[in-house]
Amino acid sequence: MPHYDLLVIGTGPAGQKAAIQAAKLGKKVGIIERKMVLGGVCINTGTIPSKSLREAVLYLSGFRQRSIYGGQYRLKKAITIEDLAFRANHVIKHEIQIVQQQMARNRVDMYFGTASFLDPHRLHVQSSRGELELTADFFVIAVGTEPARPSGIPFDDHTIIDTDGLLSLKHIPKSLVIVGGGVIGTEYASMLAALGVPVTLIDKRPRLLEFVDAELIETLQQQMKDLGVTLYHDEEVVAITRTGKQSVQVSLRNHPPLHTSTLLYAIGRVGATASLHLESIGLQPDTRGRLSGKERFPTALPHVYAAGDVIGFPALASTSMQQGRHAASHAFGHPDRMDTALLPFGIYSIPEISMVGRNEEELKQADVPYGVGIARYKEIARGQLIGDETGMLKLLFHRHTRHLLGVHAIGEGATELIHIGQAVMAFHGKIDYFIDTVFNYPTLAECYKVAALDGMNRLPRPWIPFL
Amino acid sequence: MPHYDLLVIGTGPAGQKAAIQAAKLGKKVGIIERKMVLGGVCINTGTIPSKSLREAVLYLSGFRQRSIYGGQYRLKKAITIEDLAFRANHVIKHEIQIVQQQMARNRVDMYFGTASFLDPHRLHVQSSRGELELTADFFVIAVGTEPARPSGIPFDDHTIIDTDGLLSLKHIPKSLVIVGGGVIGTEYASMLAALGVPVTLIDKRPRLLEFVDAELIETLQQQMKDLGVTLYHDEEVVAITRTGKQSVQVSLRNHPPLHTSTLLYAIGRVGATASLHLESIGLQPDTRGRLSGKERFPTALPHVYAAGDVIGFPALASTSMQQGRHAASHAFGHPDRMDTALLPFGIYSIPEISMVGRNEEELKQADVPYGVGIARYKEIARGQLIGDETGMLKLLFHRHTRHLLGVHAIGEGATELIHIGQAVMAFHGKIDYFIDTVFNYPTLAECYKVAALDGMNRLPRPWIPFL
Repeated sequence: MPHYDLLVIGTGPAGQKAAIQAAKLGKKVGIIERKMVLGGVCINTGTIPSKSLREAVLYLSGFRQRSIYGGQYRLKKAITIEDLAFRANHVIKHEIQIVQQQMARNRVDMYFGTASFLDPHRLHVQSSRGELELTADFFVIAVGTEPARPSGIPFDDHTIIDTDGLLSLKHIPKSLVIVGGGVIGTEYASMLAALGVPVTLIDKRPRLLEFVDAELIETLQQQMKDLGVTLYHDEEVVAITRTGKQSVQVSLRNHPPLHTSTLLYAIGRVGATASLHLESIGLQPDTRGRLSGKERFPTALPHVYAAGDVIGFPALASTSMQQGRHAASHAFGHPDRMDTALLPFGIYSIPEISMVGRNEEELKQADVPYGVGIARYKEIARGQLIGDETGMLKLLFHRHTRHLLGVHAIGEGATELIHIGQAVMAFHGKIDYFIDTVFNYPTLAECYKVAALDGMNRLPRPWIPFL
Repeated sequence: MPHYDLLVIGTGPAGQKAAIQAAKLGKKVGIIERKMVLGGVCINTGTIPSKSLREAVLYLSGFRQRSIYGGQYRLKKAITIEDLAFRANHVIKHEIQIVQQQMARNRVDMYFGTASFLDPHRLHVQSSRGELELTADFFVIAVGTEPARPSGIPFDDHTIIDTDGLLSLKHIPKSLVIVGGGVIGTEYASMLAALGVPVTLIDKRPRLLEFVDAELIETLQQQMKDLGVTLYHDEEVVAITRTGKQSVQVSLRNHPPLHTSTLLYAIGRVGATASLHLESIGLQPDTRGRLSGKERFPTALPHVYAAGDVIGFPALASTSMQQGRHAASHAFGHPDRMDTALLPFGIYSIPEISMVGRNEEELKQADVPYGVGIARYKEIARGQLIGDETGMLKLLFHRHTRHLLGVHAIGEGATELIHIGQAVMAFHGKIDYFIDTVFNYPTLAECYKVAALDGMNRLPRPWIPFL
């Protein structure tokens, strides 16, 4: 029975980084994966495939070229699912290989099978090839999440699918109804619409993504409508019925029923903790299967950590990595820092959205006197060059001290651009920085300067205006 | 005879910003343009057209998709000059409009004609529609540069062209020899090669762009060779002879002569000061027509400033803007800051290059003990998604304090990416910042974290390694 310093359950971003961090610290590490391949949801059914799908859609649909070559421009008239999957598979294969090599290079032992706790230091691993037991001083639970499948919904993986199912569809849907306007629902709605699929997105809230700046969401919703998405806000699904081989009826509370060839149910994911037998070590997941470890790190057991999507919000690959690394460092007394105030958010809708720091609502609630400065992509040369007519960057700053308090961006490259503001905020910089700084020309980064000048010029004098 | 607080000569980036800054300060401003359109070289024949050309080439040649869809992938088999000009013209028209509107909104009077000094406060402006005189308290000379045309080269604007001439060619050249491996020569060489034109680039130095990090240039040169560029280093042109309607012979010092359909002479630009009659106010341009105002700001005359390309290095649109703004602020006693140590450089070759701070050579010469951390795009998910196999980001930092000293990047988005490191350097940050920070996933910005971890792990222990 092999004994480890650390056993990690799950090979997604959190598990990978926990294992490698411990290995770099000279520890003996094992990692266990329930699926046939490494990488977790991130690589295999979540982030990576959906982002490669997005790249393929943007390219093959000619979306980025439309403002230049006209709104009806399409690169490939009949886009097949193979066109889209080609790129995704290429990237997935490569990413799995990288994880595999990293594990091997760092001498992390890999086990494929389903893990469950026998006692606080002993795991049982069941695979198709047999079973074994492993022991360890420390554990990191990084099992991630899986789509919730409420019993009332007749999932069949062809016409009525969950968010893991979209990528294994054989054909591009004739029409698509998406239930749930969260991040995943919004991302897929804009992607499929960019492909030309008629999409209806149903959400029970008055607007999409309530944690995002209202002005950005207005732009997003307008863009989605322009792409052909029908948005139903404040709406709830009463029943979903399969009415034929490729037809589904969706009954709604406030509207007449919808008919669609495909329905994507995109509400909620649950922690993949069911098979872990956590009760045998005295840990209790919440009603959605998660170890919401926000307040306690590690878990109730000092040698058991949870990291990644399984601990809930924000459930981003980027934070999961940091949590995994942090868990291993903490377990072995290796100091590291994790600043969560400046966590960036990236939403890969079309156009993409990103933000860091506080938004206007939060600043109002905290009674912080703030100023706003806005730059629109179409005002700057790079925006013109890439043909992004709707992109914008918004800076929020303290009206008196001019310290940067938040950055909110929508448009091409927003998820990259946000890191400039993040750095300035991390060093407690003011918007003056952007005014004094020379940016490469022509770049989107110039938006920071334009927005800072806009913000300064909106302040009441005695400020002498800047151009 | 209208009198102004400020008269600006030239409507490129430097002139525009000088005029608008003065107008924002409540001054009466006039601006004079020699050409028929606003915007200077930047908008009309330089930065903007060449960058739109580049975008068009990258898109229409399918270059960005080659690692995904295979090296032989081409989007449009027969690319015409119209395909390329279409986008450029769209952007140029829009940019001119923006400048026009900005001037009008800020009540800057516009004059079209050739300006020359009559005395230190009086300008003569000659246009096709007549002539007039203008006076002012202050002047900003922002006339920019034009290609040098040495007398030995038989320019004809069809087969033997200068760098302004490439964009008005009627056809894509059958073959192209470029003389001069500076920024412009290198940018055009990679663009035309990406289009499939056989390009030979001749430079008298042992490698391209000597002010750029040697490792980056190695990658660039390899990429250019892969694109089909033939590089002649340490080589000089002895004679250029037109031998037919579409054929030129280029005699070289160390190689047999070359035959080509088109020759682009890309060595040197000279200040466009000839018609200004600077001698009448006692100013003496250097032998290349420039007012190298590096040491003196303003010029020898306290009320006359020079800004932009006409003052020489670095001759970038981004710095020119800052210089123009700075000149106007200085003239009217409005405090502003200009930090030139953290000037970023952007080179729009294929792949693009950017850098900020010091390079290895400079650090060695200054005896600074430095460490190196490298991230390769192919190691990170975003690199895979966009199919950039050769991109890299290099961090240089102080070995003992870990302060960031320089960032050097080559690859897609490098000119945007550099601004993150620029901000960290401006706030005297250490590479620890990148290790502690969560970046959006999947983004190129993650290169900073990977490079910082790489740099840390290369340091001699007692550093405990990071993953």
